[in-house]
Amino acid sequence: MTTTPDPDRTDPGPATGPRPDAAGPAAPHGSRTGSAGNPSPAGPDPATAAGQPARTGVWFIGARGSVATTAVTGGAALAAGMHPPTGMVTEMPPFADCGLPPLDGLVFGGHDTNTCPLPKRAEALAAGGVLPHGLPAALRAELAAADAAIRPGGPQRGDTRTDEELITAFAADMTAFTREHGLARTVVVNVASTEPAPAPGADRLPPSSLYAAAALRAGCPYVNFTPSTGLHHPRLARAAAASGLPWAGRDGKTGQTLLRSVLAPMFLQRALEVRAWSGSNVLGGGDGAALAEPAAAAAKNAGKARALTDTLGSAPEGETHIDDVPAMGDWKTAWDHVAFDGFLGTRMFLQTIWQGCDSALAAPLVLDLARLTAAAHAAGTTGPVPGLGFYFKDPDEGPPGLTEQWHALLALAERLRGDA
Amino acid sequence: MTTTPDPDRTDPGPATGPRPDAAGPAAPHGSRTGSAGNPSPAGPDPATAAGQPARTGVWFIGARGSVATTAVTGGAALAAGMHPPTGMVTEMPPFADCGLPPLDGLVFGGHDTNTCPLPKRAEALAAGGVLPHGLPAALRAELAAADAAIRPGGPQRGDTRTDEELITAFAADMTAFTREHGLARTVVVNVASTEPAPAPGADRLPPSSLYAAAALRAGCPYVNFTPSTGLHHPRLARAAAASGLPWAGRDGKTGQTLLRSVLAPMFLQRALEVRAWSGSNVLGGGDGAALAEPAAAAAKNAGKARALTDTLGSAPEGETHIDDVPAMGDWKTAWDHVAFDGFLGTRMFLQTIWQGCDSALAAPLVLDLARLTAAAHAAGTTGPVPGLGFYFKDPDEGPPGLTEQWHALLALAERLRGDA
Amino acid sequence: MTTTPDPDRTDPGPATGPRPDAAGPAAPHGSRTGSAGNPSPAGPDPATAAGQPARTGVWFIGARGSVATTAVTGGAALAAGMHPPTGMVTEMPPFADCGLPPLDGLVFGGHDTNTCPLPKRAEALAAGGVLPHGLPAALRAELAAADAAIRPGGPQRGDTRTDEELITAFAADMTAFTREHGLARTVVVNVASTEPAPAPGADRLPPSSLYAAAALRAGCPYVNFTPSTGLHHPRLARAAAASGLPWAGRDGKTGQTLLRSVLAPMFLQRALEVRAWSGSNVLGGGDGAALAEPAAAAAKNAGKARALTDTLGSAPEGETHIDDVPAMGDWKTAWDHVAFDGFLGTRMFLQTIWQGCDSALAAPLVLDLARLTAAAHAAGTTGPVPGLGFYFKDPDEGPPGLTEQWHALLALAERLRGDA
Amino acid sequence: MTTTPDPDRTDPGPATGPRPDAAGPAAPHGSRTGSAGNPSPAGPDPATAAGQPARTGVWFIGARGSVATTAVTGGAALAAGMHPPTGMVTEMPPFADCGLPPLDGLVFGGHDTNTCPLPKRAEALAAGGVLPHGLPAALRAELAAADAAIRPGGPQRGDTRTDEELITAFAADMTAFTREHGLARTVVVNVASTEPAPAPGADRLPPSSLYAAAALRAGCPYVNFTPSTGLHHPRLARAAAASGLPWAGRDGKTGQTLLRSVLAPMFLQRALEVRAWSGSNVLGGGDGAALAEPAAAAAKNAGKARALTDTLGSAPEGETHIDDVPAMGDWKTAWDHVAFDGFLGTRMFLQTIWQGCDSALAAPLVLDLARLTAAAHAAGTTGPVPGLGFYFKDPDEGPPGLTEQWHALLALAERLRGDA
Repeated sequence: MTTTPDPDRTDPGPATGPRPDAAGPAAPHGSRTGSAGNPSPAGPDPATAAGQPARTGVWFIGARGSVATTAVTGGAALAAGMHPPTGMVTEMPPFADCGLPPLDGLVFGGHDTNTCPLPKRAEALAAGGVLPHGLPAALRAELAAADAAIRPGGPQRGDTRTDEELITAFAADMTAFTREHGLARTVVVNVASTEPAPAPGADRLPPSSLYAAAALRAGCPYVNFTPSTGLHHPRLARAAAASGLPWAGRDGKTGQTLLRSVLAPMFLQRALEVRAWSGSNVLGGGDGAALAEPAAAAAKNAGKARALTDTLGSAPEGETHIDDVPAMGDWKTAWDHVAFDGFLGTRMFLQTIWQGCDSALAAPLVLDLARLTAAAHAAGTTGPVPGLGFYFKDPDEGPPGLTEQWHALLALAERLRGDA
Repeated sequence: MTTTPDPDRTDPGPATGPRPDAAGPAAPHGSRTGSAGNPSPAGPDPATAAGQPARTGVWFIGARGSVATTAVTGGAALAAGMHPPTGMVTEMPPFADCGLPPLDGLVFGGHDTNTCPLPKRAEALAAGGVLPHGLPAALRAELAAADAAIRPGGPQRGDTRTDEELITAFAADMTAFTREHGLARTVVVNVASTEPAPAPGADRLPPSSLYAAAALRAGCPYVNFTPSTGLHHPRLARAAAASGLPWAGRDGKTGQTLLRSVLAPMFLQRALEVRAWSGSNVLGGGDGAALAEPAAAAAKNAGKARALTDTLGSAPEGETHIDDVPAMGDWKTAWDHVAFDGFLGTRMFLQTIWQGCDSALAAPLVLDLARLTAAAHAAGTTGPVPGLGFYFKDPDEGPPGLTEQWHALLALAERLRGDA
Repeated sequence: MTTTPDPDRTDPGPATGPRPDAAGPAAPHGSRTGSAGNPSPAGPDPATAAGQPARTGVWFIGARGSVATTAVTGGAALAAGMHPPTGMVTEMPPFADCGLPPLDGLVFGGHDTNTCPLPKRAEALAAGGVLPHGLPAALRAELAAADAAIRPGGPQRGDTRTDEELITAFAADMTAFTREHGLARTVVVNVASTEPAPAPGADRLPPSSLYAAAALRAGCPYVNFTPSTGLHHPRLARAAAASGLPWAGRDGKTGQTLLRSVLAPMFLQRALEVRAWSGSNVLGGGDGAALAEPAAAAAKNAGKARALTDTLGSAPEGETHIDDVPAMGDWKTAWDHVAFDGFLGTRMFLQTIWQGCDSALAAPLVLDLARLTAAAHAAGTTGPVPGLGFYFKDPDEGPPGLTEQWHALLALAERLRGDA
Repeated sequence: MTTTPDPDRTDPGPATGPRPDAAGPAAPHGSRTGSAGNPSPAGPDPATAAGQPARTGVWFIGARGSVATTAVTGGAALAAGMHPPTGMVTEMPPFADCGLPPLDGLVFGGHDTNTCPLPKRAEALAAGGVLPHGLPAALRAELAAADAAIRPGGPQRGDTRTDEELITAFAADMTAFTREHGLARTVVVNVASTEPAPAPGADRLPPSSLYAAAALRAGCPYVNFTPSTGLHHPRLARAAAASGLPWAGRDGKTGQTLLRSVLAPMFLQRALEVRAWSGSNVLGGGDGAALAEPAAAAAKNAGKARALTDTLGSAPEGETHIDDVPAMGDWKTAWDHVAFDGFLGTRMFLQTIWQGCDSALAAPLVLDLARLTAAAHAAGTTGPVPGLGFYFKDPDEGPPGLTEQWHALLALAERLRGDA
């Protein structure tokens, strides 16, 4: 007997619980292109009985964390017209009429092993300056509704379930959410704390991959906003390929790497030779603690390094540190120090200091990605959604420079508009 | 009698030497053939008697300044294979086979009212860390040769010549240089200190415009690497249009504005709202003193502000200061402070610190521009050369973002390759 | 007839109440006894009828500004035990038992031409992150009480009163406040916006000097926390000397100059040669607007420059800019760039970036100064209180380095303890 | 048999080679206070036969390293009047007439396992911008003379000598140097690369302690400018106490810690609560490589942390990184990020960026320390020289703030003047 699941078993059969498209409100959306064997057919959105287009689910892995809490609060605030959509790329003109689900058509839920209620988390974020004061109170109903849709997830400490059992349970949660709310589809978005890079040859799937496998099984498009393994596990490759689902990842590009993705091309285009690129991140919150673990930092830094190496052609000297400083709360200061050579070898320097709030930077991008991936699913896209490298440190495809990524994103918007 | 010249008088008559566009503005670059007596015809390069392709002249306005001295020294060092071409964009693979004049085919001369010999200027730059130690000594012959081709220019203090007389004299210098060295053509490049913005309604042309008018009259392509007026004077418009010459400008983008041209698009593409963009430049050298003059600073800052406004759609709050600090020598520190709003109005900051040597940053770009403009001239281009916005703070045309400008430059290389 | 007042007329007569120094300049602080009817005698504090020591008044010029509002709110919060006394020097152990008025024994009032109620100002500061959320609501009663003690001041626009009339009116307000609240004494503290440096030979006293003259006339110790003229006006010199009062000033040292006062001695002690010291301040609030006026900036920068010159022996190259950036609100970023030479002339750099909130930095120091000056008055000190250079950019006396100033402050505490 | 030496055996006897004060030119200087059992008596300097005061030896451990090379070159340049004494504290007025050995009375030698000749090292430092160009050539004779006095040291790779044998050999080198040059005394100064912190219970002494033991045995005052163990080894304690010698250490304070030693007191004196102090150092050279080793970094960071903890009373959050970036050469950028709380808990930030050359910062201090320790020896001081905390991250005694340390140094100068 083994505890290793079979995540490739994409047709779970009766033992693994109801299929999202087996029956009920979620069924119709499979009608367009889905063959009988396709667990997650895409196609035009169903309409509800009242003639309203069906809403879209956003299922957060890490649903009580800072990013998810900010996304839920902000999504509700924007839907209510309480704030302008600063930081949301998909609210800019090029993304109009692309068939993206409207902000007031998003329904939030998710998994989290943490039990702190979402309204309380939102209050804490407001106290820390991440959310505007008063906003959590004004949106108490919306936060409570999302809170009611959060399931405990796992594996919990002492959890004796096998990977297969966990995947089944998680998928059942996702399916139930979709059905209960009569959603056109549910996009699963991983915003959980970065997990350590899995040891080679490990028997068990890392948690992020358990959730990703569950998304496949539940027929849900999947977005990995973290550097954790998620769908990038060799044992998930076959199931992913067979799923007929779109996905996007990984590792959201919010601050230091965002900067690097515009600065590195600048050096390259100007024929200036980058000799060393060093960085230091000072941050608190749960993220600081998680990333200060060497294994998690290694996972995170791999993505940061890739952004430089892909652009510059080779890795410059220098390291990037991530320090956990609880006193920083949800805020981060990232310092970068670039030593470069100019004409005739003249040594010069660029330093950047980025002071931001990762949750506030990530949340609108997460909403963007949920919307874009939902629209891609509706348009029948499968596999990595082309054009989303703009959002990620370690994208599945596309150019490394931000501007080229921006144009690729605009091209995606064009394609979606054509399909919409 | 008036001291106002008639710069539109593009047919200078026998006294000022042969005209490049004797057959009318359209002809030369249409026919692309130069007669033996024509020092700077557009069209395929003439060959010397020995079958070698004719060399290209680079005539610097401000030929004894830091930028020109660095360009002459560096051009010679690269031609001799003494240094790799760091910082020279046109030495990168996309610019091979584009018909650019080779580095060892450039001949340098120019105007300067300063009389310090070029070898001595180069030694001073080496002492200041701008040029490698030992390089001026190793290239003494090349520096002396360029020094011998520098003419005093003007107007000197107490100079009683009219604008017209000055233009005639400058053009004669340019023509004589071209003829004496048997050059295919001579590109005039303004790298003189920034002059104050001209007073409205002034009788006299500013010096930069006198030189630009001389370039037109001598049939020389013209590059304005400074924020001075140059060709952008209303009284030169007709002559420029009629000249059949290509030109490029203005105000080289070497440091702070280079950075801004990649950072501003980043904020825009991410829907982050820039609230204030403030900057401070601490620099010495002649440039520091010149730019600390309010009128010159105004000219300089107009270009800096344009880069932001063009990208962001409106000017953010904040000012940019230029401080003359002689102790900095040829080095500059530029600090930028950007206050921006993210999701739900969360305030964040980006700061950049750029520490560079303007001469070392400018010199390779100046060589790039001389080569590209020469090739454009050979290819029959007239008017502002499309695709050179990459180099300028205040370009004549094209997009404001550096990456788009980079792609426009690559497109120019493609066109030149087709013509080559 | 002249509008020039006679500020030397220190005996205001019956209408303005009893004078503290009726018996001549030396007497009051020599005798140290106050009669019952004397609102502000130097000497031991009177006790109230109930046996409680009499409270101390703090009369702010600029009582509705950010600094005063923060000081009133914070003073009340600390008195109520709601916050630890971070930033208050006089709450540290060396200042115990020095006879300083306790925080819960301070009574606030003042002059301001602005009419925005204090509770509303406090709410705005909380929204801007200067005050903790919820604090203004929790201290509404205290804020309202202080608000009730604020008088309009002047000169208002269109005010036709002479300087003498204004001084008389202001002094009457101060005296009435002292008497109504049965205060042992009232310290007048100028925290109004920086006024332009007065034109030489101006007929009228600048407003800050009118208030300072009123303080003298009302027998109130005086603290000038701004770079405005205040008591430093030649026409006030005789009255000040004759007043028998202590005073302190000027121009509180809260951020950039605080840093400079520890960094400049470091360079000096290490024999490192400072070649240039440049700075840029980006700030909003009323202060930003006021200081961006050239005349006010000149007044402010004089103090900043003095801190460097006094330490280094001569003024290094470099300028200091103050930019008004309304988007910064009450927050400030101050960048300093120091170019210095080390051994054998090796060039090195130090840069500092200070990001703070001036009101939050100033308010506890203002409370410190009110307490220390009150105690000095009680102890019979006259003239500039020795040992307060720690607080000021442009102190009346003492060493320029912060640590020496700290030891001078500790010595003052010792003297007060001896008197207490 | 054991390889462990007996460093406490301070009377080496005939087997361990000549005693510095046994006979010969070094003998007389022991006459003042030395008892028979005192191996290193101090006292007035002897005069040479010619009536000139005897010169002073400076024996560098790490004599071919950047710091020693810079100190030798700079010492010679200053002695020859070629440069002003920037960076040398002991050349400032308070140190005149203190009996310090004059710069032209210093004689250099030392130990190094490296074999690169000193003139060549100096040329390399000039190429790296640490020394002025041309200086090594101008001082070739002085550099060659110092080079001739460098001995190989140890233990070399494969060295089979016991600790005792190594100490004996090193002490013999020191004694021979003193005798050959007829020196009044020789101060041993450790400027070798930081060695890893010794493992607890290790059999062998770390190299720095072998050299320190040799200095004791040779009767030489000892200065430890590195964080290595040196005299701070328990097995050397008895010998040190019995030696009658003065010493100073450890870990020169040149950049980031120098800054911290003025900034930390500022926060303390202003009652601002430091919540986190993080730092990152980017540096090349041998030092970068050595300090990037975790064990060496630990040794280095212990000193850095101590400077903060001693001042602030407890260690704030945050880490300090040292990154080896070979492209930086001998230059270093040190970034510090301080998060602190102000009034009512308002969060603020200070960041500092220090860009310097460690060798150029250290060299003049090393010369200072050699001179001061020599004078202290002449004055009969034994044990840690009081008043030298100004120079060290981890001093043996005294206050942690730089200004207090400065005053302690001035007091030392006063005492030495009294003795001189």
